[in-house]
Amino acid sequence: MSKMEIKRKSIMLPGPVDVPDEVLMSMSKPVINHRGEEFHQLMSKIEKISKDLFKTKYNVIVLSSSGTGGAESAVMNIIRPGDKAIVPVFGEFSGRLAQQIEAARGKVVRVNAPLGTAPSIEQIEKAVSENKDAKAIYLVYNDTSPGTTYRYAKELGEIAEKYGMFYVIDAISVFGGDVLPMDEWHADVVIAGSQKCLFTPPGLALVGVSDDVINYVRKDPPYTTYFNYASYVDFLAKYETPFTPALPLFYALETALEKIASVGLERTIEKHKIGAQAYYSAFETMGLQPFVEERFRSNVVISIKYPQGVDDIKFRKYLENNYNIVITGGFGELKGKIFRIGNMGIIERSKILPTIIAVGYSMRAQGINVNVEKAIEVAEEKLKGLDNV
Amino acid sequence: MSKMEIKRKSIMLPGPVDVPDEVLMSMSKPVINHRGEEFHQLMSKIEKISKDLFKTKYNVIVLSSSGTGGAESAVMNIIRPGDKAIVPVFGEFSGRLAQQIEAARGKVVRVNAPLGTAPSIEQIEKAVSENKDAKAIYLVYNDTSPGTTYRYAKELGEIAEKYGMFYVIDAISVFGGDVLPMDEWHADVVIAGSQKCLFTPPGLALVGVSDDVINYVRKDPPYTTYFNYASYVDFLAKYETPFTPALPLFYALETALEKIASVGLERTIEKHKIGAQAYYSAFETMGLQPFVEERFRSNVVISIKYPQGVDDIKFRKYLENNYNIVITGGFGELKGKIFRIGNMGIIERSKILPTIIAVGYSMRAQGINVNVEKAIEVAEEKLKGLDNV
Repeated sequence: MSKMEIKRKSIMLPGPVDVPDEVLMSMSKPVINHRGEEFHQLMSKIEKISKDLFKTKYNVIVLSSSGTGGAESAVMNIIRPGDKAIVPVFGEFSGRLAQQIEAARGKVVRVNAPLGTAPSIEQIEKAVSENKDAKAIYLVYNDTSPGTTYRYAKELGEIAEKYGMFYVIDAISVFGGDVLPMDEWHADVVIAGSQKCLFTPPGLALVGVSDDVINYVRKDPPYTTYFNYASYVDFLAKYETPFTPALPLFYALETALEKIASVGLERTIEKHKIGAQAYYSAFETMGLQPFVEERFRSNVVISIKYPQGVDDIKFRKYLENNYNIVITGGFGELKGKIFRIGNMGIIERSKILPTIIAVGYSMRAQGINVNVEKAIEVAEEKLKGLDNV
Repeated sequence: MSKMEIKRKSIMLPGPVDVPDEVLMSMSKPVINHRGEEFHQLMSKIEKISKDLFKTKYNVIVLSSSGTGGAESAVMNIIRPGDKAIVPVFGEFSGRLAQQIEAARGKVVRVNAPLGTAPSIEQIEKAVSENKDAKAIYLVYNDTSPGTTYRYAKELGEIAEKYGMFYVIDAISVFGGDVLPMDEWHADVVIAGSQKCLFTPPGLALVGVSDDVINYVRKDPPYTTYFNYASYVDFLAKYETPFTPALPLFYALETALEKIASVGLERTIEKHKIGAQAYYSAFETMGLQPFVEERFRSNVVISIKYPQGVDDIKFRKYLENNYNIVITGGFGELKGKIFRIGNMGIIERSKILPTIIAVGYSMRAQGINVNVEKAIEVAEEKLKGLDNV
């Protein structure tokens, strides 16, 4: 019926990512009653694995919305007009989260850092201690626009704890690809996106919510109905969602979570790290420079500076047309200055090596003389860590 | 991988409904870049058909959320704290919409009617004229809980026009199954759900939005970011969505909309009407009484009173176990008093006749002596209208 042809390309974006066939196919299962026994089984399996991945004793709810909907839920449940929030801003997405809080009529104290780095923990603590009336700290754990992961998320949790503020971690792009033990880090809300490291199609947000937040929401109900955490927790108790769930995506999520559980969370995170090391070392071997300061480099978004004279659009078009691989460029003021590769979800040689090769030969085609063969050798050495032992 | 077995049953619920295999299968297409050319083609096709179905010159946007998210969008974009809204309440879902407005700190003037009927247009106009400061009228066009369709939606639009109020029609459960020419009826917002008469899986809401609403939103931005209509309209201009779309559901929607377009909207609506007439006349032949006053009867939800002595749960369990068909019972105070059948989406004999038979023989099994054979004959006579001519 549909006449649009979809050419299968390797999608190496920082999300959405390639979804394994097995996960895609599970969406074609028939519609079931979302108030019936079959759905209860599905939801109970999703809940069990999710709680393990979040490392939480609290509830993990599933919203039928994209990641931005997940972020909205964290804003609308906690922020009331006039409430103050502390937001470290070091990229496009942390900037947007701050704006999202302002749209909800919250007041934002931004702690800014230049792109490619992030605020120090001292900077943030200073802002917190000067704004003791703030209700919450909102951290974007991994800002995909520069490719920066905030490496003091644990310490920030201790600060939130010390000052009695809610601690919200937007982990949409990184959840499952880097460490994030929710309870140990004193997080009250942790948001994961389906279409990133969880290799499920886009359209779901998983949200871990502490009892403190639920109690607050019950006392002071939010303006939102669709994202009201208390309703989700009440319905989760009977393995349901308060509103009709996006069923096919729940099927897909179930399949993906089972795959992750069978590999184990620690090994899954380790694989992301190995993949990232392969990319960074290969590109450095080619003489290309990572954009982000070393300690804040992301394991899930590899962002690399363009050498002088390489045109972003031309480079990526050449790469896509000749190697059938889709990567992306920079955002906002980084447009034309960097390219970015997603290292999320299924981490394997068959995706990483062709991407490194494609980048290398596409650089050569732009007149940049890089040593592709040496880079591959270096990458393969790192990727031995992926071998089954 | 997944061990849960899903037995294929005929889902005759008032949504979600059975999805044709062709629509289900289209979800397994590979992930594409939602900022690329392929997605633009997909979105442009969805937009073109949607505007035809809404009969509007305005924008039709697609939200990655269930129907309740669509309703939330209509509340959050228009209502600011303290704003007043008029809401006819004649069932569970119109009652919930009123509560949703109150959650957003709006003030609601309810125009109530007993279950099984609906407020007269005079009643509503009286409320409107006594509350000229109200900002909007919110109508649930078809309230699935009693199975009531508001038959003066057009006249209500004239009242909204006369008093200069926004007119919002929540048509989640009925869009595509009954008439609703958006512009002709002076509607500012019309909300459709994917999983009802559009026979797509749940998880998308289509929303027609007038320019008046967009202009208002630009002047006085809403608290919500995820549902901000202005962002959706801005991105639709380049055939994109502001936030990552639930891609597989967009694939499914495209396939379903193409099917509807190939049949034609008028014929699609007519088929729903024919199906409804077959059900009502068959059940009346059996001596069973429709719950709703005749003029407000729905073409998409058939609600029937239980005869004295029939137990809701026992009846529906018998029906499901023996005929493999899932129907549902009543909601809230109608629990145990009525059963309801969805007549949405693909309307064909092969779904309607077995359902009538199953209801008839399940009634007999509960000791109610009904004439199933005569009922089938009456239904088949009506269903001749489905014949291809």
